[in-house]
Amino acid sequence: MRKEFRKLVTIDEANKIIESFDIQPGITEIKIEDSPGRVLAEDVVSEVDVPPFNRASMDGYAVHAADTYEAREDNPIRLKSVVSIPAGINPEIHVGRGEAAEIATGAVMPAGADAVVMVEYTRSDKDLLIFRPVSINENVMHAGSDIMVGERVLKKGTALSTREIGVLAATGRRAVKVYGLDVGIISTGNELEEPGSKLNEGKIYDINSFSVASAVKECGGNPIRYGIVRDDETEIKNVLKKAAERCDIILTSGSTSAGSGDVMYRIIEENGTVLAHGIDIKPGKPAVIGKVFGKPVFGLPGYPTSSLTIFNEFVAPLIRKITGEKEEKTHINAKMAVRVRSEGRSQLLPVGVIRGRVYPVEKGSGAITTLAEADGFIEIPSEVEMVEAGETVSVTLFGEVDIPDLLFVGSHCLGLDTLIDVASLKMRVINVGSSGGLSAIRNGTADIAGVHLLDESGEYNIPFLERFGIRDAVLVKGYLREQGLIVRKDSKISRFEDIIGARIINRNTGSGTRVLTDIKLREIALQRGISFEGLTENIDGYHTEAKTHSAIASAVKLGKADVGVGIRTVAELNGLDFIKIADEEYDFVIPPGLLESSGIKRFMEALRSQEFSEKLPPGLRTYERTGEIIRMPYSEIRK
Amino acid sequence: MRKEFRKLVTIDEANKIIESFDIQPGITEIKIEDSPGRVLAEDVVSEVDVPPFNRASMDGYAVHAADTYEAREDNPIRLKSVVSIPAGINPEIHVGRGEAAEIATGAVMPAGADAVVMVEYTRSDKDLLIFRPVSINENVMHAGSDIMVGERVLKKGTALSTREIGVLAATGRRAVKVYGLDVGIISTGNELEEPGSKLNEGKIYDINSFSVASAVKECGGNPIRYGIVRDDETEIKNVLKKAAERCDIILTSGSTSAGSGDVMYRIIEENGTVLAHGIDIKPGKPAVIGKVFGKPVFGLPGYPTSSLTIFNEFVAPLIRKITGEKEEKTHINAKMAVRVRSEGRSQLLPVGVIRGRVYPVEKGSGAITTLAEADGFIEIPSEVEMVEAGETVSVTLFGEVDIPDLLFVGSHCLGLDTLIDVASLKMRVINVGSSGGLSAIRNGTADIAGVHLLDESGEYNIPFLERFGIRDAVLVKGYLREQGLIVRKDSKISRFEDIIGARIINRNTGSGTRVLTDIKLREIALQRGISFEGLTENIDGYHTEAKTHSAIASAVKLGKADVGVGIRTVAELNGLDFIKIADEEYDFVIPPGLLESSGIKRFMEALRSQEFSEKLPPGLRTYERTGEIIRMPYSEIRK
Repeated sequence: MRKEFRKLVTIDEANKIIESFDIQPGITEIKIEDSPGRVLAEDVVSEVDVPPFNRASMDGYAVHAADTYEAREDNPIRLKSVVSIPAGINPEIHVGRGEAAEIATGAVMPAGADAVVMVEYTRSDKDLLIFRPVSINENVMHAGSDIMVGERVLKKGTALSTREIGVLAATGRRAVKVYGLDVGIISTGNELEEPGSKLNEGKIYDINSFSVASAVKECGGNPIRYGIVRDDETEIKNVLKKAAERCDIILTSGSTSAGSGDVMYRIIEENGTVLAHGIDIKPGKPAVIGKVFGKPVFGLPGYPTSSLTIFNEFVAPLIRKITGEKEEKTHINAKMAVRVRSEGRSQLLPVGVIRGRVYPVEKGSGAITTLAEADGFIEIPSEVEMVEAGETVSVTLFGEVDIPDLLFVGSHCLGLDTLIDVASLKMRVINVGSSGGLSAIRNGTADIAGVHLLDESGEYNIPFLERFGIRDAVLVKGYLREQGLIVRKDSKISRFEDIIGARIINRNTGSGTRVLTDIKLREIALQRGISFEGLTENIDGYHTEAKTHSAIASAVKLGKADVGVGIRTVAELNGLDFIKIADEEYDFVIPPGLLESSGIKRFMEALRSQEFSEKLPPGLRTYERTGEIIRMPYSEIRK
Repeated sequence: MRKEFRKLVTIDEANKIIESFDIQPGITEIKIEDSPGRVLAEDVVSEVDVPPFNRASMDGYAVHAADTYEAREDNPIRLKSVVSIPAGINPEIHVGRGEAAEIATGAVMPAGADAVVMVEYTRSDKDLLIFRPVSINENVMHAGSDIMVGERVLKKGTALSTREIGVLAATGRRAVKVYGLDVGIISTGNELEEPGSKLNEGKIYDINSFSVASAVKECGGNPIRYGIVRDDETEIKNVLKKAAERCDIILTSGSTSAGSGDVMYRIIEENGTVLAHGIDIKPGKPAVIGKVFGKPVFGLPGYPTSSLTIFNEFVAPLIRKITGEKEEKTHINAKMAVRVRSEGRSQLLPVGVIRGRVYPVEKGSGAITTLAEADGFIEIPSEVEMVEAGETVSVTLFGEVDIPDLLFVGSHCLGLDTLIDVASLKMRVINVGSSGGLSAIRNGTADIAGVHLLDESGEYNIPFLERFGIRDAVLVKGYLREQGLIVRKDSKISRFEDIIGARIINRNTGSGTRVLTDIKLREIALQRGISFEGLTENIDGYHTEAKTHSAIASAVKLGKADVGVGIRTVAELNGLDFIKIADEEYDFVIPPGLLESSGIKRFMEALRSQEFSEKLPPGLRTYERTGEIIRMPYSEIRK
């Protein structure tokens, strides 16, 4: 057996290595309008007085305060109105005793005058009548009384946003020095293609250089993408060298696994120092930390979620420290919704967080949907065997994620998209089929499950609540949908039996559609006197599983399969033919404690609304039971 | 008396007008790397399968699973190793029974093979030895099993950040449609100059077009600055017309007060409709809402804080609604630290928020420092007479403000800047002099006050705690600083008495330096047998108040004054001469409940540190009492 003999570093060791990096961020001067979100690299000292002159802070008349002391509502004093001073000019006049100059808010106080009488307390006839006294300096703002020349108005290290930009403008600054940490980003791998280009055979789109660049930006860094580099030592070396000339930190992804493509490690070793080859926390094993061509370099794992996880755990704190970017938004405490068993080694587990509850997001290795469904990750140290439901955990978020209101887990349906749109809900939809939805309700992770499971008795959904051991949820009747065969217009398939011998695309195990398909297939096997396995062995594509109706339709449309089972809606949307085999009851299962929550209330209102009924796509329809709530014990209801 | 007869609209009426605006945001297509923070204007449906082919999810050997069923650790099976498949190519081979193809993670599964044996469970000699069985599909990720063609991966209205950008890249999207709301921004006023240009007489820098543009951006809008426009009807009209052609919303500021420059109202009336002329909530009186050249227009007040307040109250929610930008970050609930008396009319009161406590920020009308020190504002309806200390209020933040850890109120000192730097604290520093600091401690708003108040007995600070009615704070001895006269090198002034008859720049009332100055002046008045007022009347500039030592030095340096009282530090920093008159004790007052807080602990550590002592600028020095804590009752200590 081939074995690896590699000494992984611990998290603490990795962090010590990272702390030892002495990175000085570059400083760039930018226009203040481009500065929101950046961090000041200089103390800003005002070079002007604000205001720059003694100014009137009210519309009115500039006077000698002493002239007004006797003014009364019923006994106004008279002054000679000499001139009018608008804002923006330098009034080269002197207001003498007994005189007044009309003055606008913000205008320069004329020499002589030491107060402003508000216009409301004056009246003009041939003279100016003043009805109230003012004291010296009243309604006058002195030069520099707001900010004086020489005052430090903003401190180095300040994060700039709206109000700081206002302060900068006020002191006459149009450009400002900010920190700029250039972070080079390189994706390696022969299999990578640039998004937007055609995908050749055997290739996949490069994700990491885009997602990591966005993450770098959120941390206050300036990402510089060097694009995709083939798995070629010379090519990678050249790009690393180029990046090292300009950048303060270099991030690569891919080419770090222990397999045939493990070139990154060797290049770093030959052109610098490898400080860590693998971190002893899942998914850190493929990570590399080192210096190459004099600059710190991090080799991130190739899988997108792993790459972002290792970035957020080890690189993001470093970049934030250097750029002074705030951290508070990226960590939250919340309670585990389910018990999680440790894998026996330290791990960073991707999790979703909805309504303060944390649940693990575990998809296949390298699945991009893990990233789409996870809000962040939690650390489970190797010595922890179990994280219990209800335990408070600290979640490191994948940047500034927009966390939805409700978590839907279950069967995919286009009607659900309509419902979400009508209810204006932010809902995370996880398509794992009806059984997955019921499991999630039982585990306490889902807020709503969407199910359409047919019992062999002919009853939908209710029998399965009991079968899944769900005792305290309500079933909300949803809508009906036509299930059937989806085929191309030129297909010879006309009835369910015809799928035997055809190339099919199947739905995923646990989905209601799969249950329906298998019930129908069992009937045929029974009729033909053969085993179910014997029958399905002869169906080409029986084990090719698609997760959604749309995916079924696509496969048929593109000729990857000749037939699949799905709903009329997607058949019609894709210009395909549809052969109805059943009218399904698509229902929702909801924990009873949530029925009074605002989110579920909006959901229920939308479900029962005329608008939803009208907007439902063809093949789906509401009926008299739509919105009906069935409570436990279900068995009684069934009688 | 001149009076205004104008019907202000209520907040509700203003909001109804704004709700009636039917604004459709534009849609623009941008590269995904530029999309963080934008909102999707399309449903994103995957046009590719992810992965696009059946791929190996481990490094190992692609085999027929059935060939491995008998494999055991102590009894490996032998397969013929036929070829090696790297990632990124299309393997045009067929793996037959009894054969194995070496395969890299991410590579395309060859025809024939239906599983991958991990490399760890194999060994090569002339054949390939397999030590563990695999089942069908093991370590294989099926085409489309992550995302299938036709699947909606992102919903219209989704806010884009790191993970969404990863999903977009994964499905091959390089560009994406996002909402783009163009918001035109115009500053009007003859007195305005562009920051960065020279400030002519009577002019001030334009602040609003920069701060409002930044605020628009934070709401998800696309600000378009039309710069500064003179108070000229034709000019303003032309710019409004130009802005209306391109923009979805127009924001102006200035030219809306009731005085001579009130042209905006007339222009809107002549070229559209004025829907509201003044909103009945302070500072909304100068605001105008209407339509001009077919587009919604908001005339914001000219003062920067007022302008941002009205923007955040009325315009920001509109822009956020249209752009789908999240609101949660801009509102927080917190407790009032002090009682606030209403002004008898509705008002939006600027407030600071530190450690969850809200305190009003009230500077002079139009002060830019209000903006610098306020984090947001609270609404006080007209029917509320008083907001009590401890009451929970909802604060609308001025965008994504960076709220500091601690609030310092008191006397300005450069030593404090050093202390903040050594302690690495984010501290808001409000320079209102020593008395202001003590008031803030008494009111419960400040976390630290910095004081240097000399009692006529010759004792510093402690007598003033009692005088201010502070019974439960501790006094922390700070450092010594040399106070004296700051004069130019060529000055004839050589002792304190010389300031009589000179042009001076004074410190603000309530500052310790002012107290020191007045004590010295009283001594002189006493010696000369004249009244204090009689003496100060003859000091040119006695009533010109600067808030900081730096400002004093600047005024002297620039020749605006001949002498001021301040610390040696700033005299030396400005190349000025210094004539010492006292060694002051600069101390800190801290509520005792905070002594154990992490912020104050860091503050105390820094104060007592060698580093602080060494970094203190010239003229300031620590001494044996530095860091000493004096607790109540103060009177006992004084004995």
